[in-house]
Amino acid sequence: MIDRHLLEVKQSSLEVYRGNFLTAFQDTVELPDGTFATREYVVHPGAVMVVPIFQDEHGDTRLVLERQYRYPMGRTMLEFPAGKLSPGEVRFQCAQRELQEETGYSAKEWARAGLIHPVIAYSTEFIEIWFARHLVPGERHLDSGEFLDVLTATPKELMTWCFDGTITDAKTICGVWWLQNMLNGSWLPDWQPISAAACIKN
Amino acid sequence: MIDRHLLEVKQSSLEVYRGNFLTAFQDTVELPDGTFATREYVVHPGAVMVVPIFQDEHGDTRLVLERQYRYPMGRTMLEFPAGKLSPGEVRFQCAQRELQEETGYSAKEWARAGLIHPVIAYSTEFIEIWFARHLVPGERHLDSGEFLDVLTATPKELMTWCFDGTITDAKTICGVWWLQNMLNGSWLPDWQPISAAACIKN
Repeated sequence: MIDRHLLEVKQSSLEVYRGNFLTAFQDTVELPDGTFATREYVVHPGAVMVVPIFQDEHGDTRLVLERQYRYPMGRTMLEFPAGKLSPGEVRFQCAQRELQEETGYSAKEWARAGLIHPVIAYSTEFIEIWFARHLVPGERHLDSGEFLDVLTATPKELMTWCFDGTITDAKTICGVWWLQNMLNGSWLPDWQPISAAACIKN
Repeated sequence: MIDRHLLEVKQSSLEVYRGNFLTAFQDTVELPDGTFATREYVVHPGAVMVVPIFQDEHGDTRLVLERQYRYPMGRTMLEFPAGKLSPGEVRFQCAQRELQEETGYSAKEWARAGLIHPVIAYSTEFIEIWFARHLVPGERHLDSGEFLDVLTATPKELMTWCFDGTITDAKTICGVWWLQNMLNGSWLPDWQPISAAACIKN
């Protein structure tokens, strides 16, 4: 195996914290040189982010965004709609659910963009990114205790906000990367109706 | 204040775990509707990532990358050089130090790209992104217990790897976003020699 000289092998694992939301572990690993080290990390169920696209009354492309207070940041953040997987939930179902619950929109066509790992040093979290278009407005159903504003922006505004620090959320910047490459023709989304998108393998 | 209807106000804070690397807190907050909730999060010192650029013998642009085993992922990951701030360390010094320690390279010119937040739901972590050019090779000085390979790639290879899932590290995809916009002229880095870069405000 090509990466054998980099491999860390688990010797033991200890659950050091179990909260309502976070579970943390401290493992002992054997390093490639035969010495031992500890690795601390959070176990996360995984999440989905949606990049929702529509055309406004002038035919211009706009994106649906959220503004939400993020407590560890101590401020509100601009981000694409996203949410954690519920136990046993399929990722595409989570994408549909989060978009509808948080923004009210449902989408007729979907395309899987990719999967990112936001915290490779200390969390198992992944975020699968879906693009959604042909949006149909509806009612939001926020979870109890969930407060967020829904807004829209053009691709150009999004780019400006990533450059000037208005947007600093890494998953949202990754979404803007796929969006930019969709708009310049470097990425061709495989748009599917809901019934077919539900069959796309993770 | 425009975001008052989204604000969460700290009522109390409890340190629930202090490890060698991670410190976790569980806070009680008052929500905008006057109800209470808990927020669990990790406190992180912040980090720096470097996008190191050089021209190969054909004059083609190449980037310096690392391949490192990331234990929470259970595999090696391709990423730009990065590392945590040491106590009291200035971010630009951290960028210079991490590049040299992990790859051996020092750079004559630097440009600050931006700052990202990789984990807004449950960590205070930020990552400041610096671009580095006019690289001078030297010896690496890996920390004890640190194992990683250094490799190089073209911008086109990087793009392909982000699309096909070879690269899934969110901070690295964000770096590729700035790189792509540097190469297409949308982002003009403010290149500075080391002495001037050291004066750039965070």
